[in-house]
Amino acid sequence: MAVQTIVAAETNSPAPFGPAVALSCRECGERFPLSPVFACEACFGPLEVAYDLPSGDPEGLKKQIAAGPDNIWRYAPLLPVPADVTTKPNLNPGFTKLVKADNLARELGITGGLHIKDDSGNPTHSFKDRVVAIALEAARTFGLTTLSCSSTGNLAGAVGAAAARAGFRSCVFIPHDLEAGKVVMAAVYGGELVGIEGNYDDVNRFCSELIGDPIGEGWGFVNVNLRPYYGEGSKTLAYEICEQLGWRLPDNLVIPIASGSQLTKIDKGLQELIKLGLVEDKPYKIYGAQAEGCSPVSAAFKAGHDVVRPVKPDTIAKSLAIGNPADGPYVLDIARRTGGAVEDVNDEQIVDAIKLLARTEGIFAETAGGVTVGVLRKLIESGQLDPAAETVVLNTGDGLKTLDAVAPTTGPTATIRPTLDAFRAAGLAGS
Amino acid sequence: MAVQTIVAAETNSPAPFGPAVALSCRECGERFPLSPVFACEACFGPLEVAYDLPSGDPEGLKKQIAAGPDNIWRYAPLLPVPADVTTKPNLNPGFTKLVKADNLARELGITGGLHIKDDSGNPTHSFKDRVVAIALEAARTFGLTTLSCSSTGNLAGAVGAAAARAGFRSCVFIPHDLEAGKVVMAAVYGGELVGIEGNYDDVNRFCSELIGDPIGEGWGFVNVNLRPYYGEGSKTLAYEICEQLGWRLPDNLVIPIASGSQLTKIDKGLQELIKLGLVEDKPYKIYGAQAEGCSPVSAAFKAGHDVVRPVKPDTIAKSLAIGNPADGPYVLDIARRTGGAVEDVNDEQIVDAIKLLARTEGIFAETAGGVTVGVLRKLIESGQLDPAAETVVLNTGDGLKTLDAVAPTTGPTATIRPTLDAFRAAGLAGS
Repeated sequence: MAVQTIVAAETNSPAPFGPAVALSCRECGERFPLSPVFACEACFGPLEVAYDLPSGDPEGLKKQIAAGPDNIWRYAPLLPVPADVTTKPNLNPGFTKLVKADNLARELGITGGLHIKDDSGNPTHSFKDRVVAIALEAARTFGLTTLSCSSTGNLAGAVGAAAARAGFRSCVFIPHDLEAGKVVMAAVYGGELVGIEGNYDDVNRFCSELIGDPIGEGWGFVNVNLRPYYGEGSKTLAYEICEQLGWRLPDNLVIPIASGSQLTKIDKGLQELIKLGLVEDKPYKIYGAQAEGCSPVSAAFKAGHDVVRPVKPDTIAKSLAIGNPADGPYVLDIARRTGGAVEDVNDEQIVDAIKLLARTEGIFAETAGGVTVGVLRKLIESGQLDPAAETVVLNTGDGLKTLDAVAPTTGPTATIRPTLDAFRAAGLAGS
Repeated sequence: MAVQTIVAAETNSPAPFGPAVALSCRECGERFPLSPVFACEACFGPLEVAYDLPSGDPEGLKKQIAAGPDNIWRYAPLLPVPADVTTKPNLNPGFTKLVKADNLARELGITGGLHIKDDSGNPTHSFKDRVVAIALEAARTFGLTTLSCSSTGNLAGAVGAAAARAGFRSCVFIPHDLEAGKVVMAAVYGGELVGIEGNYDDVNRFCSELIGDPIGEGWGFVNVNLRPYYGEGSKTLAYEICEQLGWRLPDNLVIPIASGSQLTKIDKGLQELIKLGLVEDKPYKIYGAQAEGCSPVSAAFKAGHDVVRPVKPDTIAKSLAIGNPADGPYVLDIARRTGGAVEDVNDEQIVDAIKLLARTEGIFAETAGGVTVGVLRKLIESGQLDPAAETVVLNTGDGLKTLDAVAPTTGPTATIRPTLDAFRAAGLAGS
């Protein structure tokens, strides 16, 4: 009797990973059951989620999505999550604004239309909430009880906040010399926050060691053993952009590159939408954006190489400062296949672009947003991106987290005594 | 012919203030045409917007709202804006998350249901985007070309960003000794930012002088001559809360008090929804929340006074630090009429409440959110708020803007060398 009851319950509950059917190796294609692993047993290639997606009724699917919640779970039919995901506690990120940026378009000479996908509107103000939300649901399904990551900022806050809401223990590892503000953001959610005496590479190495040790049992490192699920969160950026454009593909997308995962998953998402018939199949170009001080993918693209030579990062765009980007080669493939490019800008151009975006559209981006907007400007100036085509540029984070980048050059116009004479004397009276 | 053309154009364009018909004095009831004025000519009382609201078809109105955009403009039929407001450049704030806070409810012993209206999701991460959005549309209609305010933080950013998007000149006045971070936030949008040698009161006095001078011609001070329109933006919080609850009134609302305007306008919004038949008429209680270091309304409430005696603010909750709150007497009326209360918490309780909210719900609030959550806890403990009733508590801003408040008591759990032995020795291995 007891056994029968359990079977009935399992039959009634939705598939724990929705339309996802396996993990599949990106290098050799070998398939594995859905579990908390990230590397192919056969060839050590990275694993990604493979789906059996719904097909045959794109209009019905669009209606189903439109009737869903105003967050990433509206796309649950296309994600590795159960259909009842909305009943579980989660930060529910996503469905951030796609801002029509007419002022910025005018400044840059874009005539084909420009939109900013502004992911600073997420709960902890970066796109990391998307990837963590999916990783968290996988952790729940696998019965993991501690949510963890190595991070230098955005991810730490996203993991801490998501774990708090969902009732997970969290334990986040950071370099011990992180800026005080970022430490506060990571610690305020009440989880364990461990400073590691060393740099970000040391933190990563330690995390890999921890996950191989019995101590790590029950731990879900969102960007290690949950990475295949985590990465899928970035697909939702592709879905939202196309839905918010009225189920259309843009001509160009400008996307920042850290590990390169986000860019590859956005391409994956766009390809899915085409296959499902949710958007009309047409060419689109994907452009990758790096900071000059950490531009291994851009360098490889320009040199015509297929491999990415690691660098030691030195840039104010710390959220993009991964010197050995795991998905670099895939990014090169996508940029070349779609007819896009990979470009980089220096720190001064990043700061200028942050201010340009703020001044024209009232959006205060973190340094990563300065990188994408700066690269967009450079791509137009160098003739690599057609200003008569429709472009979407990503802002993946919030300027409040990287105030130091703009602080030295951003201050009061004037400081005066509280009198009209002083105001006039400062030359501020004319409009 | 020219005249006919102009008349035809005027007839075809929507009413510039939508359903708003006049400014009306809150003290003597005298009515004035809709213009950029804020005080009654007869009695010097504050003016507010009076409406001829749509009536007779609540279900039709609900459908119209639901079909609107995911921002405050879905309520355009109830706001002093034209029906085509969505065609104009604006930051389009609002429709922020109403978070079901089961974890926090459990901690506080609330059994009747608890929601957090989390306005940190607005474009510049505070509720000020709502009020500025309406003021901006009024400025556009009146042909004003400079958007201005006096501010100590949130408002400066909201005005700067909104003006940038909408193509207005902006000129914002702040005390000269504001924290560097807040100065950056206010200045990054590229408008004029003027530091005034003096405190916030000196800034305010200077602004009043400026607006009375010919220099001030064409200037819209959102919180002075545009204040009647500006204030209406807070009504949208009432609309959203009730719509997100499924067109229902909550039993209790806990709202922060700075000038008191927000609280009075939320009450106005709830009354409108009842009159329009959008929600069922039932009792609700409104609770005001202050910081102990600036609690003139709470003091008056407790003493049974009708007048509010000004104080000199001394609290970490700087966004609520108005020592002489203009709407204080109206707040007292509303708290007493609805059976609510006004309560205050000290700085330590504010910090504890910020951390409690972060730890339970993954929401990092600014100090004003610490005030409302702290007051909610105190109201329950003192028996002033029924935990078996359904409560909505407001978070009006973002913790990233007031990091200093929690920084001294928020840091890493441990700092260790990158080895498993060090991890074990730190006592972190057990879950």
